[in-house]
Amino acid sequence: MPRFKATVEYDGTGWHGWQTQAGVPTIQESLEQALATALRTPTPVVGSGRTDAGVHAIGQVVHFDVPPSTDPVRLAGQLNGILPRSVAVRDVAPADESFHARFDAVLRTYHYHVSEHPVAIGRSTRLHLRPAPDWEHMNRAASRLVRTADFSAFCRTQAETTNRVCAVSQAAWEEESQPGQWRFRVSADRFLHGMVRAMVGTLLEIGSGRRPADDLERILESRDRREAGPAAPARGLVLARVDYPGSKGA
Amino acid sequence: MPRFKATVEYDGTGWHGWQTQAGVPTIQESLEQALATALRTPTPVVGSGRTDAGVHAIGQVVHFDVPPSTDPVRLAGQLNGILPRSVAVRDVAPADESFHARFDAVLRTYHYHVSEHPVAIGRSTRLHLRPAPDWEHMNRAASRLVRTADFSAFCRTQAETTNRVCAVSQAAWEEESQPGQWRFRVSADRFLHGMVRAMVGTLLEIGSGRRPADDLERILESRDRREAGPAAPARGLVLARVDYPGSKGA
Repeated sequence: MPRFKATVEYDGTGWHGWQTQAGVPTIQESLEQALATALRTPTPVVGSGRTDAGVHAIGQVVHFDVPPSTDPVRLAGQLNGILPRSVAVRDVAPADESFHARFDAVLRTYHYHVSEHPVAIGRSTRLHLRPAPDWEHMNRAASRLVRTADFSAFCRTQAETTNRVCAVSQAAWEEESQPGQWRFRVSADRFLHGMVRAMVGTLLEIGSGRRPADDLERILESRDRREAGPAAPARGLVLARVDYPGSKGA
Repeated sequence: MPRFKATVEYDGTGWHGWQTQAGVPTIQESLEQALATALRTPTPVVGSGRTDAGVHAIGQVVHFDVPPSTDPVRLAGQLNGILPRSVAVRDVAPADESFHARFDAVLRTYHYHVSEHPVAIGRSTRLHLRPAPDWEHMNRAASRLVRTADFSAFCRTQAETTNRVCAVSQAAWEEESQPGQWRFRVSADRFLHGMVRAMVGTLLEIGSGRRPADDLERILESRDRREAGPAAPARGLVLARVDYPGSKGA
């Protein structure tokens, strides 16, 4: 069967995360139901990775197999007609039959959105910080996260995996086009469970002066989740993009 | 009485615009009710200008008078505790007693948000265009709007005002930080009723090839609203900022 690759955007508010679980609404299940309706056949979907309850995506990548001669553009239109308003298929394209959304991914990029001001527009994806943190100080600290290391200290489920080495290639706060609105942009080959939210929570403690910037070295070396800060709330977090060999990078 | 200046953000979805009208929810009324509660006295609010039903703001500027020794920071906190989630006071500061939010404004800037992709996050403030317009072509056309001229052809209510001369100092489409998401950014000393939405509607016709770019000259000279394109939907429009003498410009 031909294989398709799709990029999916979702507002995770009210959803129980990506992965199908009995009895609660998930993005994966919603997408599989829409595909079953559009293609008239059960269609399992494989995503690039899980996102937690309340976490959003603008660039979740998935793959699935379709009946021969399925038209990708027409399928995208059909899916967007069926899916709830909080889920959108940004594009659908044919992929190599061996393409695997999860195993082939080489780089994942997350954004975490915050604001110095109270927020009325887009508050489902942005956290108001009061008072504003010291951005420069926080950015100096963030640069220490750019390394290949064991990130156990930022991993929520210690038992999840035996290999906790991640290659973080980018970790920085940048101001967005609207003054006073910032995002933390972090890329790595892989992320452990809860890793970005633990990083952001720890950096916000540093940015507000409640924790020294050089604490990051000690936290990383401890490999103990209790040494890092509290997880930042899910709603500021967005899976921004997933790169594969040959894509142009984040 | 001391006068305060405040910057207000709102998601206009479901609101009947800025200006108080009997029997329907408006932003002005909501703000006046919150001020009456916080200050324990009726407090009329003057905004920099009206926004229509469904139109948003990140930088609406207002003024109002307060009892002596009112603390602006404490007041902002109180207001944000009272206001509905779709309205936020970004800051409150003392102003000169002669400051007038409407008459003193020298420059107003609007953004209109669109997307080449279906949208799930932030869809209350962004329009999905299908197919994507020709951005370069549309930008060449937009540059012809940068002039001081009679903009009657882009004014919804012909009877509104006898002076329909506006000095448009900026009108351009720019790609936002997320690829495929664009905004039209337009600044002028004043805007006529429905002017930005008529401009955007006309430019989108040009960008999709349904109208030649040099049509703008003819439309402007006609001073006839029927010559311009249909108004773009309210929900993509955001009052971004209002400048006063001495502020640094849009």
